[in-house]
Amino acid sequence: MIDIEISEVGPRDGLQSIKPIMATADKKRWITALAAAGLPEIEVGSFVPAKILPQLADTAELVAHGRSIEGLNVAVLVPNFKGAENAVTAGAHKITIPLSVSETHSLKNVRRTHAQMLEEVRKIRALIDNLPANERPVFEGGLSTAFGCTLEGHIPESKVIGIAEQLIKAGCDEVGISDTTGFGTPNQVTSMTKGVWAAIGKDKLTGIHLHNTRGQGLANVIAALDVGLTTIDASMAGIGGCPFAPGASGNIVTEDLVFLLEGMGLKTGIQYEKLMQARKILRESLPSEVELYGFTPDAGLPKDFSMATPQA
Amino acid sequence: MIDIEISEVGPRDGLQSIKPIMATADKKRWITALAAAGLPEIEVGSFVPAKILPQLADTAELVAHGRSIEGLNVAVLVPNFKGAENAVTAGAHKITIPLSVSETHSLKNVRRTHAQMLEEVRKIRALIDNLPANERPVFEGGLSTAFGCTLEGHIPESKVIGIAEQLIKAGCDEVGISDTTGFGTPNQVTSMTKGVWAAIGKDKLTGIHLHNTRGQGLANVIAALDVGLTTIDASMAGIGGCPFAPGASGNIVTEDLVFLLEGMGLKTGIQYEKLMQARKILRESLPSEVELYGFTPDAGLPKDFSMATPQA
Repeated sequence: MIDIEISEVGPRDGLQSIKPIMATADKKRWITALAAAGLPEIEVGSFVPAKILPQLADTAELVAHGRSIEGLNVAVLVPNFKGAENAVTAGAHKITIPLSVSETHSLKNVRRTHAQMLEEVRKIRALIDNLPANERPVFEGGLSTAFGCTLEGHIPESKVIGIAEQLIKAGCDEVGISDTTGFGTPNQVTSMTKGVWAAIGKDKLTGIHLHNTRGQGLANVIAALDVGLTTIDASMAGIGGCPFAPGASGNIVTEDLVFLLEGMGLKTGIQYEKLMQARKILRESLPSEVELYGFTPDAGLPKDFSMATPQA
Repeated sequence: MIDIEISEVGPRDGLQSIKPIMATADKKRWITALAAAGLPEIEVGSFVPAKILPQLADTAELVAHGRSIEGLNVAVLVPNFKGAENAVTAGAHKITIPLSVSETHSLKNVRRTHAQMLEEVRKIRALIDNLPANERPVFEGGLSTAFGCTLEGHIPESKVIGIAEQLIKAGCDEVGISDTTGFGTPNQVTSMTKGVWAAIGKDKLTGIHLHNTRGQGLANVIAALDVGLTTIDASMAGIGGCPFAPGASGNIVTEDLVFLLEGMGLKTGIQYEKLMQARKILRESLPSEVELYGFTPDAGLPKDFSMATPQA
C-alpha cells in the first residue's frame, strides 16, 4: 500500500527537453529499473511526430516494454487525436492530452485554439468508448500553464476552473494541474485545487505536475499534500533543465521528492537503493555533458534515516 | 510592517564556509546593500579567533558598520564567553551562541561538553546583566544539530527540548532550532517546534535555521510557517555550499525564500530589485570560482508577479 503516488515523467518530459537521444535499449533498461525501484506509474513517451521530437520516436516500443512489466501503469502524452490513436494501438494504460489554459501558449505550442483542442478531446473520448470496457485507457486532460504563462502572464483561476469543466464535459476522465512555467506558489496550489474540486468533484483531480524553475517545487508539494492531492509528477535527476534558468531543474527531482515524502512518514513504495541504481543507469546512458540534478543522491539519506516504505 | 522576518546569515555562515576572504570594504558595501533591500537583521560575523576563521577576522568592524545603518538589527555568532565579550564591546544587537545538541559534535566542534557550554552561557548572562538595560543585546542559544547529526545520527526530540530548557535556565533570552546537517523533514519542524514551545513558552522560540543539503529547505519553511515560526534564517545566493553535496547550497537561498514568502502574500519588507543589486555586489566581490546558488535570480520573478511588500 502506498500513500502518495509518484508518477515518473523523466522518460517523457525529461528526455524531450535534452538534445541527445537516449538509445531505446537504454530507455528500456532505465524504465525496468525505475519500475523495479517501486515507481507505480511511468510516462514513457509522447506520441508526437518523430520530426518534431526525435528523442521520443520510440514511444510505441516503450509502451509495449512497459506493459511487459507486471503492475506498472504505463502513461503517455498525446498532443491530439492522431497521437491518441497511436497510444491506443500501442496499449497505453493512461493517456494525457495537455491543454494550455493560456490560449496564446496553446496556439504557439500546438497551433490549436481551445475550441479545437476540445474537439480533439471529444474525438478521443469516442475512440476510447469504442474499445472493449477492459481495454480503455484512463484519459486525462492536463491543464498546462495553469499557474501562469510566460506569454500571457497571470492566468485567472476562474479560467483554469472553466477549462477543467470543459475538459470533463468533452470526455476526459480526470484532469491534472500543471505548473509548466514554474510560476506556482503554495497558495495557488491550495486555492486552485479547491476551486477545481468545487467545479468537477474531488475524484476528478488527484494529481499535480510541478516544475522547480524558481526552486519552489517541494514547497509546492507540501501545499499539494496539505490540500489532499495524492499523485505527484516528478522526474529522475530533474533531467531536462529549463531554458529560462541555467542550473535549474525543470521537473521536481524524484529522488528529493522520495526523501521528502518518506521523511513525512508517507509511503511511496520506493526502494531507495534501487532508485539509486536506476539513476546510475540514466547516468551511464546519457552523455556526461547532460547534467543530473538532485541533492539527496549527492548528500545521501541522513544517518539513521528510516524510510516509511519497508525496504527489502 | 513585515509578516515574516528573514535573518540574513550570508556574511557569517556563507563567508565562513568558503575559502576566499572577502575584503572588508566589499563586505561593508554588501551589508549596506542587503539592509537597503530591506533585510531587517544581518548576522555580520562571528567572534572566533582569526587563526581559526580568517574570513571573519573583521567582525568587530562590521558590527560597527552595521550599527551605522539606521534600523538594522546587527547579529553575531559567538562560540564562548570570550567571543561574547568582544561582541558586547563591539555593540552587537543580538548574540547567538550555538550549542550542539549532539555532544559528540559539540566536543569535536568547540571541544566543550554540554555542561561546559552551559557554564559559558551563565557567564555571558552575567556579563549582559552588568550592562545598562538599554545596551543589553538579545542573547540567543542556537540548538545546532537539532534535526540529526552526521556523527550521532538520530537526535531524540526529548534531548532537543531538554537542552532548550537548560539554555533558557542558564540565561538565554530565547533559542533557535537549527538543521545544521540538512537532515530535517517538515514533520520534524512541526513536532520539534511544538515540543520546545510546550517546555519554554512560545515567545522564546521564534526562529529556525535550515539548510538545503537535501533540497528540502523551502519545504521545511512551509512547515515552519504553518506551525507559526516567524523568523527564517537564509543566505544570499546560498553561499557556502556543503561539503557533503557538491552543487547543493548550504543555507536556504534568500532570493528563493523571498519569492516563496511574497508569493504566499507574506510581507518580508524586501525590495526585490535592490536585493538583486546586493547579489551583484556579492558576485563582484568574490572570485568567479565561488558558485552562487538560487533559482529565482536566474529565472526572474514570474511575469505579472506582485510582491506582497509594496515596491518602491
